[in-house]
Amino acid sequence: MNHNGRVKVRGPATVGNVSCGFDVLGFALQDPADTVELILNDSGQITISGIRGPHASEVPLDPERNTCGVAARAFLQKVSPESGLEIRLQKDMPVKSGLGSSAAGAAATLAGLNELFEGILEERELLACGLQAEKAACGSIHGDNIAPALLGGFVLISSYQPLHFVRLPTPEELWYAVAHPRLAVQTRQARQILPRQIPLTDARRQWGNLGGMVSGLFMGDYDLIGRSIEDRVAEPGRSRLIPGFEQIREKIRKGPALGGGISGSGPAVFALCRGADAARQAVTDLTAVFTGLGIANHGYTGPVNTTGATVSGVPPE
Amino acid sequence: MNHNGRVKVRGPATVGNVSCGFDVLGFALQDPADTVELILNDSGQITISGIRGPHASEVPLDPERNTCGVAARAFLQKVSPESGLEIRLQKDMPVKSGLGSSAAGAAATLAGLNELFEGILEERELLACGLQAEKAACGSIHGDNIAPALLGGFVLISSYQPLHFVRLPTPEELWYAVAHPRLAVQTRQARQILPRQIPLTDARRQWGNLGGMVSGLFMGDYDLIGRSIEDRVAEPGRSRLIPGFEQIREKIRKGPALGGGISGSGPAVFALCRGADAARQAVTDLTAVFTGLGIANHGYTGPVNTTGATVSGVPPE
Repeated sequence: MNHNGRVKVRGPATVGNVSCGFDVLGFALQDPADTVELILNDSGQITISGIRGPHASEVPLDPERNTCGVAARAFLQKVSPESGLEIRLQKDMPVKSGLGSSAAGAAATLAGLNELFEGILEERELLACGLQAEKAACGSIHGDNIAPALLGGFVLISSYQPLHFVRLPTPEELWYAVAHPRLAVQTRQARQILPRQIPLTDARRQWGNLGGMVSGLFMGDYDLIGRSIEDRVAEPGRSRLIPGFEQIREKIRKGPALGGGISGSGPAVFALCRGADAARQAVTDLTAVFTGLGIANHGYTGPVNTTGATVSGVPPE
Repeated sequence: MNHNGRVKVRGPATVGNVSCGFDVLGFALQDPADTVELILNDSGQITISGIRGPHASEVPLDPERNTCGVAARAFLQKVSPESGLEIRLQKDMPVKSGLGSSAAGAAATLAGLNELFEGILEERELLACGLQAEKAACGSIHGDNIAPALLGGFVLISSYQPLHFVRLPTPEELWYAVAHPRLAVQTRQARQILPRQIPLTDARRQWGNLGGMVSGLFMGDYDLIGRSIEDRVAEPGRSRLIPGFEQIREKIRKGPALGGGISGSGPAVFALCRGADAARQAVTDLTAVFTGLGIANHGYTGPVNTTGATVSGVPPE
C-alpha cells in the first residue's frame, strides 16, 4: 500500500457533450475542482466524516448517495472488500452547474484509491466504477464527465456496452472559456427535456460533426474544431433553461472563440479558443451576458487540463 | 490546357457508410472501376458518344441523366461554359450494387476535367460538382461514395451545409474484402426503407462508434476500427433486402475480419481486415455464403485504395 493509506486528491471540473458529442465526449478544466482526503482503515465501512467548503451543504453525507462514497464502494468491492475508508470532502464546486460536479469528487476518490493500491486497476476499470457513481447521482449512465475528470484532456466514450474509451490528443493552444451563472439545472431534469427520437437528418449532422471534432483534435486543426461545435440534439431544448443563451450564442459566433455551447446539461456555457488571449476575451464576453441580466456568475479560463485527477498531498492527522 | 484536351481516367468503386458513418464516411477500393475517355471540343455541348463494357446497357446515354454528364456540366459551368466535351464510358461496374457505381464515373470525369484544366478547381469544388451528380442519380445528397472515389482512402464528410470534408489516414495494413451478389438494390428504394426518426440511444451509439472509427484510423488501432463497425440505423432495415445477411454477419463475427456490414445501400457487403491473408480468407467466406444460396456473386479484395480517380492514359483517336 502506498502513502501509508492516506492521500489527498484534486478532481477537476469538466465540460461534457462539447455540443457535438452528446454523452460521449468531454474535456477537463483547470478550475474549479473538488478535493478529497482519503484515509484507509480496517473497519470494513465507508464513511464521509466531513464535508467542507462553500458548497458543502449541497451534497449528502450518506456514502450510499454521495458520489465519492458510491465510487469508493465500487472500487473497494473489486479490490479489497474488507477495507474501510474515511472520506473528507472539500466541496468547492457548485452542484447542478453543468460542470461535472458529481464526477469531480468521484474521479478524485477513484484516482486516490488507485494510488493507495499501487495502480491495481486499469483506467477502464476505474471508469466503470465512476459510471456507477454517475448513475447514482444522475440516474443515467454517462461518462463524458467522469472520464476526463479521471484522465484529463479530451476523452471519447466510443462505446458504453461494452465500455470502451479513447484518450484524444489536445492541441497545444486549445484554451477554454467557461461561464457559470448561479442557477441550478438538475441533470436529471435536463435529461427529461431531451427528445427520445431525433430526425435522421439531425443525427447525421451530429455524427458528421463529431467525426469532424475528433479529426480536428488529432490534426490540431482549430478551424475544424470550431466548425464542428454544433448541437442539434440537446441544445434546442436545454437552452431554454438558460437565460441569455441567445446572446451567449451571438457572442460566441462573433468570435474570437472557435465555437461553444452548453456545458453538459447546463446552465454553465463553454467556448473553445485558440490561445490565451482569445480565451480571456471570450470569458469576459460570456460572463458579461449573465452580469448584464443581473445573474451572479463566475468565469473560468485556462488551457485544457491534460492531467485529470491528481494527488495533491497528504491529509493532516 | 493539359494533354491536348484528351485524357483517360479510371474511377474506383467505393464502400459508403462503413456501418458507423451513415452518409458521412466512405473508402475506395482497387477494383472494380469505371473508366472514362474525355475529349474536349468547342461545341458547347456535352455528349456521351458511347458506352461499352459488361454493364453498358444499365446506364443512360443522355448526358442530363448520366452521372458523368451531370458532373461534367457542373464542372464546365464553373470553369469554361463555352467548352464542349465528348465522353466515352467503359462501364465495368454493375449498377445498384452498393459499390458506388454512380460515383465512379462521375469522379473519373471530374478528376479528368481538372487534369485537363490544369488543376483549376480545389478538391472541395470538385466534390460539390460530384454531389450534384449523385443527386441526379440517387435523388439525395450524399458524398460518402463520390468523395473517396475522387480522393482515395477514407474520407469523412463532416458537414454538407456548408460542405466540408476530411481526408482520414489509412493504416498501412488495412485491407478490405467485398462480396457483391448479383441482385439489384436501388439506392433510391434503399433510402425509402430508412427510418425518418431514430431513438436517441441508437444515435448516441452511432456517433460513439463513428468517433471510435475516426480515432482508430488516426491511431492505426485495428481493434478499435473493428469494434466501431456497427450500424443501428440503416442495417436493420436494409439487411432484409440481402439474402443470407445473417450468415454474412456470423462469418464476419467469427473472424478473421475486424468487422463488416452492408456496403452503401447494398446488396454488396464488406469487411475490413488487418493484412492480406485475413482479407483473402474473408472474401472467400463472404462469397461462399452467396454461392451456397445459389446467387451468382463476385468478390474483391485489396489494400484500401489511397489514390482515388487516376489518369490512366490518353484516349485513342
